[in-house]
Amino acid sequence: MTGGQAGEPQAGRWVGTPVPRREDPRMLRGAATFVEDIPRPHAHHLAFVRSPVAAGRIAGIGTEDARAVPGVLAVVTAADLGHPSLTAVLERDEFVPTSMPLLAHDRVRYAGEPVVAVVAESRYVAEDAAERVWCDIEECDPVLSLADAASTPVHPEAPDGVLVDLQMFADDLLDESLARAPLVLEETFRSGRVTAAPMEARACLAEWRDRDEQLVLHCSTQVPHQVRTGVAQALGIAERQVRVVAPDVGGGFGLKCVVGREEVVAAAVAARWRVPVRWTEDRQENLTAAFHGHEQEYRVRAGFDAEGRFVGVDADIVCSVGAYSAYPFSCGVEPLMAATELPGVYKVGRYAARARGVATNKPPTAPYRGVSRPQIVLVMERLLDKAARRLGIDRVEIRRRNTIAPHEFPYTGPNGITYEPGSYLEALERCVREVTDAGWWERRAGGDGLRRGIGLVNFSERTAYGTATMGLRRMQMTPGFDVSHVRMDASGDVVVTSGTCGHGQGHETTFAQIVADRLGIRPERVKLRQGDTDLVSFGWGTWGSRSLVIGGGAAAVAARTLAGRLKAIAGELLEVGPGDIELADGYARVRGVPEARVAVEEIAATVHFRSHTLSRHHDQLLEARGAADPPGMFSNAAHAALVEVDPGTGDARVVDYLVVEDCGVVVNPTVVDGQVRGGVAQGIAAALYEELTYSPEGQPLAGTFMDYLVPTASEIPPVAVHHLQTPCELTETGAKGMGEGGTIGAPAAVLAALNDALRDCEADLDHIPVRPADILRVLTTGTRTEREDTA
Amino acid sequence: MTGGQAGEPQAGRWVGTPVPRREDPRMLRGAATFVEDIPRPHAHHLAFVRSPVAAGRIAGIGTEDARAVPGVLAVVTAADLGHPSLTAVLERDEFVPTSMPLLAHDRVRYAGEPVVAVVAESRYVAEDAAERVWCDIEECDPVLSLADAASTPVHPEAPDGVLVDLQMFADDLLDESLARAPLVLEETFRSGRVTAAPMEARACLAEWRDRDEQLVLHCSTQVPHQVRTGVAQALGIAERQVRVVAPDVGGGFGLKCVVGREEVVAAAVAARWRVPVRWTEDRQENLTAAFHGHEQEYRVRAGFDAEGRFVGVDADIVCSVGAYSAYPFSCGVEPLMAATELPGVYKVGRYAARARGVATNKPPTAPYRGVSRPQIVLVMERLLDKAARRLGIDRVEIRRRNTIAPHEFPYTGPNGITYEPGSYLEALERCVREVTDAGWWERRAGGDGLRRGIGLVNFSERTAYGTATMGLRRMQMTPGFDVSHVRMDASGDVVVTSGTCGHGQGHETTFAQIVADRLGIRPERVKLRQGDTDLVSFGWGTWGSRSLVIGGGAAAVAARTLAGRLKAIAGELLEVGPGDIELADGYARVRGVPEARVAVEEIAATVHFRSHTLSRHHDQLLEARGAADPPGMFSNAAHAALVEVDPGTGDARVVDYLVVEDCGVVVNPTVVDGQVRGGVAQGIAAALYEELTYSPEGQPLAGTFMDYLVPTASEIPPVAVHHLQTPCELTETGAKGMGEGGTIGAPAAVLAALNDALRDCEADLDHIPVRPADILRVLTTGTRTEREDTA
Repeated sequence: MTGGQAGEPQAGRWVGTPVPRREDPRMLRGAATFVEDIPRPHAHHLAFVRSPVAAGRIAGIGTEDARAVPGVLAVVTAADLGHPSLTAVLERDEFVPTSMPLLAHDRVRYAGEPVVAVVAESRYVAEDAAERVWCDIEECDPVLSLADAASTPVHPEAPDGVLVDLQMFADDLLDESLARAPLVLEETFRSGRVTAAPMEARACLAEWRDRDEQLVLHCSTQVPHQVRTGVAQALGIAERQVRVVAPDVGGGFGLKCVVGREEVVAAAVAARWRVPVRWTEDRQENLTAAFHGHEQEYRVRAGFDAEGRFVGVDADIVCSVGAYSAYPFSCGVEPLMAATELPGVYKVGRYAARARGVATNKPPTAPYRGVSRPQIVLVMERLLDKAARRLGIDRVEIRRRNTIAPHEFPYTGPNGITYEPGSYLEALERCVREVTDAGWWERRAGGDGLRRGIGLVNFSERTAYGTATMGLRRMQMTPGFDVSHVRMDASGDVVVTSGTCGHGQGHETTFAQIVADRLGIRPERVKLRQGDTDLVSFGWGTWGSRSLVIGGGAAAVAARTLAGRLKAIAGELLEVGPGDIELADGYARVRGVPEARVAVEEIAATVHFRSHTLSRHHDQLLEARGAADPPGMFSNAAHAALVEVDPGTGDARVVDYLVVEDCGVVVNPTVVDGQVRGGVAQGIAAALYEELTYSPEGQPLAGTFMDYLVPTASEIPPVAVHHLQTPCELTETGAKGMGEGGTIGAPAAVLAALNDALRDCEADLDHIPVRPADILRVLTTGTRTEREDTA
Repeated sequence: MTGGQAGEPQAGRWVGTPVPRREDPRMLRGAATFVEDIPRPHAHHLAFVRSPVAAGRIAGIGTEDARAVPGVLAVVTAADLGHPSLTAVLERDEFVPTSMPLLAHDRVRYAGEPVVAVVAESRYVAEDAAERVWCDIEECDPVLSLADAASTPVHPEAPDGVLVDLQMFADDLLDESLARAPLVLEETFRSGRVTAAPMEARACLAEWRDRDEQLVLHCSTQVPHQVRTGVAQALGIAERQVRVVAPDVGGGFGLKCVVGREEVVAAAVAARWRVPVRWTEDRQENLTAAFHGHEQEYRVRAGFDAEGRFVGVDADIVCSVGAYSAYPFSCGVEPLMAATELPGVYKVGRYAARARGVATNKPPTAPYRGVSRPQIVLVMERLLDKAARRLGIDRVEIRRRNTIAPHEFPYTGPNGITYEPGSYLEALERCVREVTDAGWWERRAGGDGLRRGIGLVNFSERTAYGTATMGLRRMQMTPGFDVSHVRMDASGDVVVTSGTCGHGQGHETTFAQIVADRLGIRPERVKLRQGDTDLVSFGWGTWGSRSLVIGGGAAAVAARTLAGRLKAIAGELLEVGPGDIELADGYARVRGVPEARVAVEEIAATVHFRSHTLSRHHDQLLEARGAADPPGMFSNAAHAALVEVDPGTGDARVVDYLVVEDCGVVVNPTVVDGQVRGGVAQGIAAALYEELTYSPEGQPLAGTFMDYLVPTASEIPPVAVHHLQTPCELTETGAKGMGEGGTIGAPAAVLAALNDALRDCEADLDHIPVRPADILRVLTTGTRTEREDTA
């Protein structure tokens, strides 16, 4: 573990110190402010009438009975709002834009789709009135798979059911290479549909403020500025007329980095009727009608030479993206990411990939934490394990032979990506050493009737997508861009504003450390303000492991500029040049003359209260702006899982877990470790527990936590976290993104460990989640499961 | 009247257009948000136990009974809060700093001074419990006049009772000049104590926000940043931990440009108990325990030559400043302003002035609208009228002979002030012409048993105090400094932030006009945000006729910078240089090629959504910062009043009124005229109606609007407003401040008119307010009133 005493800096630097999370006291005391905690006693409440069927044509809607219920202000259909919609864009010709209506009209495209909104004086009244709305829907056969898609397209604009079809990295010589390869694997891998299930489901409070001529939307979101743009465009008003504020947000995991239709409907109602309006999603809505992810299938051909080295990989990827392109990120995000980043830390030789996003009659997908990387890591790691077994090569050794080596950086792969330096091989070796030191191999041997297996995986992940990535440039700025303002007050304390929107990541702690180091003050004196579109002109919000790197980077740039001003003023007060001043321990000191110093608060007070004593002009308040726009960079990690399988019941449990993570400079080990451990838990859940299943009619079968199995603490093992630090030269702080890594590695590690536990069986497990029944089937019949409900 | 059709620009410029006030719809619809309109259903309420006596020593306070009242959260004394106080500073050695405790302890210094605060679940409970607090106070004789002051000093720090004693502009040759003068007048002038009596009295809502680590104080104030500093200093926390927000504010007039103790107590309670706390001043508190102004006495010697030209003026000025120096402006503001600016538009020859601020057992004074200028104009104009009469010179002619002439600008007077160009003589001549054209001289002749008189006055007022003025430099920045940020959103609309705090002045309208002209868009697309310390790092707020000039000037600078960016981008899109682009009518156009144009919203969308198509770096959002720091400048005006006196009852009424105003470039004639008319009404009130009188025991005698006679519409005549425009070269917009001029000229004009109506009597009226009894006394006894209750 990195880090010294909690709360005190190492070697005079706060970066690297396990400063206790500043957010925790209010969370633990119940003093946080979530959307529901904002008092608006006279707010109206929304309830939605949702489609009872997966696909159909709306023949009629009857709202009269509902309107007659006492306490109902309005019963709102798409027509009442002028048929507003949200339309995602993607800088790809192969993308078919489709619009997502705020309320369904003409057709319904999934069970749970909002059709009518009831506005009433209480949620009770709204729900009761919603039951009196009748929707006459002519039901159609639902599209639940790729095969269905072409027969009954979900959107007329995409008659073959394909919303995005990316033929990337075609290589004419690939087939030839594979034909000559001593070993060619042809495999299919699948992952089930999941959802983020944050502790706080979606919620919003919309109100019109006359004084500001603004619709203020408090919203549980990761992307306030994207919500602002979505609301402004859907409502046809200027962006300045919309303010989106994310107060405390109880988790997002990608679910809240897209714009919910319900939130925009709330905004539309508040703008039209000029009443405050609340909507708080219940758990059933959240599981069945919010955004999903992960439902993917990979058909892969991979060729190896006799030493187990890749000669080529050909992947055909299909993502079931649901009924709509979620705004703003579009349904292209999962296919694009999968096809682009599949090779990971390995030199795959020749590479080709086709990735499709297929519309189905299920809820739309959002960039769920990890975005296709859990799948592509699973694919690559399963391929290597299979090849190792077929070729009789040690699992670690085959990885050594394929991994990009230190001397090969910067390495440009056949996917066109240039990988800046990382510790790919070092992480692998360290992980193996830690596993050995921890006695896992002895534990694996077992002897107590339980089967045990070890999974070992190694991967990189692109974080903080920048200028050249993601096809998002046509959308808004580049996704790597953010600004930050740093202001020092008359007391010498600092407020940092950022376009990020932390919702559990500890930004208030880590940004303060970064800024504190540059100003030579304690981090308690630095307060981050974020999650409010009125704070900064533009911000991309928090997703894609971007915030500390880009938002924190912008804050670092701003703080560096402010530090320059402090040094200039201190130089004047101490009668030396600014270059002779250093900022540390709350003072500006003359280098080498420790007694020649002036406190930072004294500088601040001088500027604010005695500016006439300074030669510099008063215009020079203690404020500075910074921006960051890095191109994106790769974190890497090796994960190891130790699983235990009960051959009698098929029950599998992860009993130990180990991570070696390299996210460059670690700003706060406590925060990084927490992110890693939470991610691993979420990845274990995807591997063993969570899945949103549907009936053949397209009805959701997991509408409560009785069916959607979010693991509890008793299902999650201890997770040891070890750090390597390869400083990033592309960022101001040397940090790389790391918010998703745990989630990315865990499914592959668990699946590898399960297969290792079943190493004497005939068949492999190549899908997630793995259920006890799947394990029993392998143990008893030697056949692997075929899943029916994925595309 | 200036201005064209309401709402449409003249000659392509919005500045100068009578754009309807943007603030009015919400005010007229009852949709404005005052502090009381902010919903906090669970807020606690404050009630104050106030001193029942004007002066005394606190021997004991009993709070047990009050604490026992159900619903009471706390009963708070100064000791409970650690004896916090507010201390005003002034850059003058002659100033005696005294601190004002948030709650009185040890001594009480005026009847109504807060001693104990009761915090309860409702105002009802709080008031009831407050009645159960007992205060054992050993009463002392109150200090109500300068004579009393030295015998029983209000503050031990100032044993002679004088808190500030400014001997300014001493001139050894003055006495000699006066001795040789053909005419020397020795006169005494007095003005009674008044208060602003805004429609909305003071109000606040304090709450601690855990997420922001901030005390948020919604407060009906003119100076949010000053309140922030005051609260932070009194509570011993950093400024960033305090956010002060002024929502809609129902008038201020100076009363709200100082920090109320009650507001800081509310903040202290919210910070300590972490509950939202409200306090809303009732009218009795407002009249008897808020801030006052105007209680002044001038003893003046003025020498004239035979042609009526001043040879010298010697003034001894005493201001009864009340019991404390109000924070932040101190009790030095009235004396300083009086002594510095007394000469006004006149060349007075030699000049000396002593100005004292004397502590009395009455509420503290604040910079009431006009700040001593109503008095000094009254003094100068009375002197001229008296001299004219004594010397047999026409009233207008004697003014012509003494007024600074156009060829004399820039003119530096014996008060050390340099007057930049104004229309002093032109305003006088225009006013005389308008009076004549309006037939006032015929009306004055009367014949129906009523006496009629015409008052004619001419004056200048320094506005927007800047770098060199007011002795405020040691306080915070220079008072002329403010910043503004201008941000254009993706829709091409603009948000302007400012450290000003409009509370009726129409800034939202006028700032939008200024910015719209520079960006070539309509003002509806420009939204001003102000009154919030989190919006800008620092701002002086709104007082001293500064906001349009300084805040609007900073916005103009920022808009000019942003316009440069728009031109650069438009140049790139239209393939010409930025210098060839002009911004008008919502477009960036190539000069001389009207069809070569791009809409401003298209530029904005390009920057936000298609930035990769531009050569410029993405860091360049459409935002700019501006600052302004002018040195202060002089507006001028001539006023004329026509009064009617009923010799039977002594009743006097102003029946017609006329203003010729020069505030430089008029941004919005509707707004300027509104300010002038409101100011004239307030000045008439000071001349004839309003006065806060006290009993010999120091008990306030005007605790309701039955006693404090705020005039209604039926007491105020039509006010014709004519504009001269001498553009100011010291400001970005050419505008000068003008928010106080109406108030400044009216008392002198009315008093001159009254004396003119009584022109055949022996005695003059030299004080305000003039009551019917004063008039009857002059009519019946020929003696003028001596007022007993002023210092």
